[in-house]
Amino acid sequence: MKVSIIMGSITDEKIAKKSVDILKKFGVDYEVKVISAHRTPGRAVEFTENAEKNGTEVIIAIAGKAAHLAGVLAGLSTLPVIGIPAKSSTMDGLDSLLSVVQMPKGVPVATVAIDGGENAALLAIQILSLKYEELKDKLKDYKVEMAKGVEEMNKDLNL
Amino acid sequence: MKVSIIMGSITDEKIAKKSVDILKKFGVDYEVKVISAHRTPGRAVEFTENAEKNGTEVIIAIAGKAAHLAGVLAGLSTLPVIGIPAKSSTMDGLDSLLSVVQMPKGVPVATVAIDGGENAALLAIQILSLKYEELKDKLKDYKVEMAKGVEEMNKDLNL
Amino acid sequence: MKVSIIMGSITDEKIAKKSVDILKKFGVDYEVKVISAHRTPGRAVEFTENAEKNGTEVIIAIAGKAAHLAGVLAGLSTLPVIGIPAKSSTMDGLDSLLSVVQMPKGVPVATVAIDGGENAALLAIQILSLKYEELKDKLKDYKVEMAKGVEEMNKDLNL
Amino acid sequence: MKVSIIMGSITDEKIAKKSVDILKKFGVDYEVKVISAHRTPGRAVEFTENAEKNGTEVIIAIAGKAAHLAGVLAGLSTLPVIGIPAKSSTMDGLDSLLSVVQMPKGVPVATVAIDGGENAALLAIQILSLKYEELKDKLKDYKVEMAKGVEEMNKDLNL
Amino acid sequence: MKVSIIMGSITDEKIAKKSVDILKKFGVDYEVKVISAHRTPGRAVEFTENAEKNGTEVIIAIAGKAAHLAGVLAGLSTLPVIGIPAKSSTMDGLDSLLSVVQMPKGVPVATVAIDGGENAALLAIQILSLKYEELKDKLKDYKVEMAKGVEEMNKDLNL
Amino acid sequence: MKVSIIMGSITDEKIAKKSVDILKKFGVDYEVKVISAHRTPGRAVEFTENAEKNGTEVIIAIAGKAAHLAGVLAGLSTLPVIGIPAKSSTMDGLDSLLSVVQMPKGVPVATVAIDGGENAALLAIQILSLKYEELKDKLKDYKVEMAKGVEEMNKDLNL
Amino acid sequence: MKVSIIMGSITDEKIAKKSVDILKKFGVDYEVKVISAHRTPGRAVEFTENAEKNGTEVIIAIAGKAAHLAGVLAGLSTLPVIGIPAKSSTMDGLDSLLSVVQMPKGVPVATVAIDGGENAALLAIQILSLKYEELKDKLKDYKVEMAKGVEEMNKDLNL
Amino acid sequence: MKVSIIMGSITDEKIAKKSVDILKKFGVDYEVKVISAHRTPGRAVEFTENAEKNGTEVIIAIAGKAAHLAGVLAGLSTLPVIGIPAKSSTMDGLDSLLSVVQMPKGVPVATVAIDGGENAALLAIQILSLKYEELKDKLKDYKVEMAKGVEEMNKDLNL
Repeated sequence: MKVSIIMGSITDEKIAKKSVDILKKFGVDYEVKVISAHRTPGRAVEFTENAEKNGTEVIIAIAGKAAHLAGVLAGLSTLPVIGIPAKSSTMDGLDSLLSVVQMPKGVPVATVAIDGGENAALLAIQILSLKYEELKDKLKDYKVEMAKGVEEMNKDLNL
Repeated sequence: MKVSIIMGSITDEKIAKKSVDILKKFGVDYEVKVISAHRTPGRAVEFTENAEKNGTEVIIAIAGKAAHLAGVLAGLSTLPVIGIPAKSSTMDGLDSLLSVVQMPKGVPVATVAIDGGENAALLAIQILSLKYEELKDKLKDYKVEMAKGVEEMNKDLNL
Repeated sequence: MKVSIIMGSITDEKIAKKSVDILKKFGVDYEVKVISAHRTPGRAVEFTENAEKNGTEVIIAIAGKAAHLAGVLAGLSTLPVIGIPAKSSTMDGLDSLLSVVQMPKGVPVATVAIDGGENAALLAIQILSLKYEELKDKLKDYKVEMAKGVEEMNKDLNL
Repeated sequence: MKVSIIMGSITDEKIAKKSVDILKKFGVDYEVKVISAHRTPGRAVEFTENAEKNGTEVIIAIAGKAAHLAGVLAGLSTLPVIGIPAKSSTMDGLDSLLSVVQMPKGVPVATVAIDGGENAALLAIQILSLKYEELKDKLKDYKVEMAKGVEEMNKDLNL
Repeated sequence: MKVSIIMGSITDEKIAKKSVDILKKFGVDYEVKVISAHRTPGRAVEFTENAEKNGTEVIIAIAGKAAHLAGVLAGLSTLPVIGIPAKSSTMDGLDSLLSVVQMPKGVPVATVAIDGGENAALLAIQILSLKYEELKDKLKDYKVEMAKGVEEMNKDLNL
Repeated sequence: MKVSIIMGSITDEKIAKKSVDILKKFGVDYEVKVISAHRTPGRAVEFTENAEKNGTEVIIAIAGKAAHLAGVLAGLSTLPVIGIPAKSSTMDGLDSLLSVVQMPKGVPVATVAIDGGENAALLAIQILSLKYEELKDKLKDYKVEMAKGVEEMNKDLNL
Repeated sequence: MKVSIIMGSITDEKIAKKSVDILKKFGVDYEVKVISAHRTPGRAVEFTENAEKNGTEVIIAIAGKAAHLAGVLAGLSTLPVIGIPAKSSTMDGLDSLLSVVQMPKGVPVATVAIDGGENAALLAIQILSLKYEELKDKLKDYKVEMAKGVEEMNKDLNL
Repeated sequence: MKVSIIMGSITDEKIAKKSVDILKKFGVDYEVKVISAHRTPGRAVEFTENAEKNGTEVIIAIAGKAAHLAGVLAGLSTLPVIGIPAKSSTMDGLDSLLSVVQMPKGVPVATVAIDGGENAALLAIQILSLKYEELKDKLKDYKVEMAKGVEEMNKDLNL
């Protein structure tokens, strides 16, 4: 089971890092690549043509501004594509969000929150868990762990 | 393989219909229910507790305004949850979109476009196709069919 | 008379602090808890089921992004729920605001300004003052005090 | 127990009607008045000065565009003021929403959704129920009735 | 000839300062006061009732968030009221702008740009110049001076 | 005393009509012209150069979309310029509003609400009233009349 | 000299028609095609690879929602690409506009107004006029004609 | 071949610098001037009247807030005008973007991303390349270079 994380630029590395940390924690294989929908469109074609045979089962695409990367990859592949809109220096992430989520009929992108690296990875794992049963328990454990984390916060309250 | 389509209100039925039509075309089982995150929270708990044992593998949640349904179901389940923001009478869908997509860390919702019933179903099928190989070919055929549809449009041009 | 302040995460503590300071000033009992609509949904049910018998008369809920906490608590309780949308790192609070205020018919959330901890507490006190007459005078005194504060500003003007 | 519904203009009557229908259903007394924050500011002062002695316990204020009515009444009274932003011909309700909800520190307005007449009344009833216990059961019955309404929708589904 | 600058809070002093600097430059009398539409509504009435007899000919009102001050003063007076929306910590000034500019029919506020202290003063001077001819020449000189300022910038260019 | 109403296109005639009706009611002279900042820039220069000697004392400029007309006239004249942003087929008036109101330092436009023809005229009259005392009483009468209008609405209420 | 007008879907035909009418008027050759960035990505590659040798000198791309077409073509070609954001059923064109205009560094799209078919064609003609001198005079004539059109409007005024 | 870069104020110099760097790299002549649509409208007329005879073939206009500069120059010239909306201290660039891009029918502005100095220059070069064939190869080289830059990023990845 493998997730391919594609960034439009190395400036999105911090967001990819959040995805990677979650995937590692769940023991899911991953690869990280920089492919630009606009500057290396050939690479986008090449990547999607070989993705399945290379073992990729879910694609995570991270891009900002007029963020076409996720949509372009989704147009070239039938694998599920998760899109992370990245906040850039203007428009507070709204441009990225709308560019990623408002895909026209026929080519979906599974969009998560702006800069939402962790949730993209968790969604990828939920998707993989349909096939790889062992991930199911890990996801349930993770939910328990998160709940404990919230309970812990109550001990730290100072009000 | 089964997709559960949950609507926050029967007023979302038109959007659900678009999802149903796609699922039928691909031969994927589905059920449609009205469950309100706010008016029948108990039903939301009951549904998610039994979803897996009832065979549900992907959940599609449709809601408008302060659209909490997808997020609430995602909080209660480890199945992948696809959220469709529904446009209502004010704010042109922006309220629904932000309420669905901007989920905090730990609980993802795979958000598609506002009123995007078809894409939610296609995304569900892409997800199921990891496990059910027969869907892969159907998805590839669908891409070919869409491409043909675009080619056909060229014949109808009057400019 | 007791107000329960529920935060979606300990990161909202600064906003809760503003509410607490006002409640203390008016001599109103309060409790502060972290309960996440998405990560500890069971706690949300448990809290609302016992809220009345535990003496809670007004609930203040603070959350950011796709801020479902106030709406979820309002769905589970008939107590008045005041929602504070919290500004997070993207979207300048608009996502939180719309997620809190645009509640569908049947389940109101009394929404105050983004990050508006003081006003949430003052609204709670106004609500309580219907039943607890002694708060009425304190509210009137507070209005006088605020007016004096504005008058004082005039002395500090340097223009 | 009495709720005063104040509209900025008779064009808001449809929204007020939704509030009135709910208040009638719950057997709560009400009055409806047109008072403009800008065109009859004197009436606003007069109304708030006499509101308590006239038996008003909660104020609902409805206005559109630069919707100052709720805020102005809240500045003049210590009663809880519920604000309903009304959608007008431009800006899709965003102007009204922000004008009502973004009140500065010290003077809260309990804001409900754009055009949310029903929820304003329900919130008023929740507030009154702290003092008038008989409303508590009615609110619980209403929640049951709403849940039944959602269940009924399931029977009408045609998908 | 006198301009009254009214701020909703002393936190708006920086913006008022920009207006004052322009008024001084043009030799126009001014006064600066803090009056809150919500916290000192009585002062707002008192101020407007006496404004004309105190020599005020134009009012500049500065406020942020749900910025009702300009609208409230305009409701109480027939003097021209210039509104400056002040940017606060959330919503990037959009809330203030819409609260000031979207005034309903019958009660105009002459709105300038967010934080636009200089332009408010210049507008006041343009208004006064209809009556006080000496200001006309000063305004023309100011335009010439601004144009020279732009020409100067060309000398500082380093490209 | 004369107000010049300049429209960017004849499609704005309905908004100009609202201004004209108010000016007629107050007995203020007016002229209406179509001048486009982009299509007839020479006319804009010619109009402003002669405006004062032609008796114009206030300019009202109406335009939609990237609405530069008011700003361009303000750059060419020292007369007070009132800008009316006109709603067009997209963006719900937001593009016009921001293009009119967000004028840079040095060149103010007195902006009224989107499509706010009446308020533009009333603002023009308030401005003229500084010099033409007879307008003062008419403005006060108008305020009384508006207040009566609001009182009348109370008689028509059916709730 | 040839302009290629590419639409993402035949639903954009009305906008393309506006471009075609202008190009015809100026005697500029054109072709119109439907090519979808997402549904026929191969066609996009094929079109851009052959565009220059087929005589295309400027590309106009029309698309709505997450409108990637213009950006994708710009990534594949060094010809100037003009993007027209098309308004769809939600978000009032804002999603299309931001998806088209906010292109990252290195791959520009010359964006015109939402639904701006005429302006896209005029921009294409301005671009071509650098090389084809005969278009220069036509553009100047067009400006004169537009100015006359505005003058004509003045005759039709009824105010 | 010459590109004229016009800024509304010297505060836009950083953005102009980005354009200049690209133009230098491609060996395209340029000039940089500060001309304000509002403060030096005469200069705008003078510049456009002489632009062609001074050898200018493409105009780049940079301005913020109610950014009229590009539109005003486009109204005065038949040369292609590229507009760069500049982000200022409020509204995150949205005001500038809408003021530049939403030009009415007849007068196009080729708008690039907010603060998009590089892309404005690249677009200018693409436009010039229709006439100056030597730029074609340079543009193709630039695309190759950008692609290499993306490939290089892959070597720097640390995930």
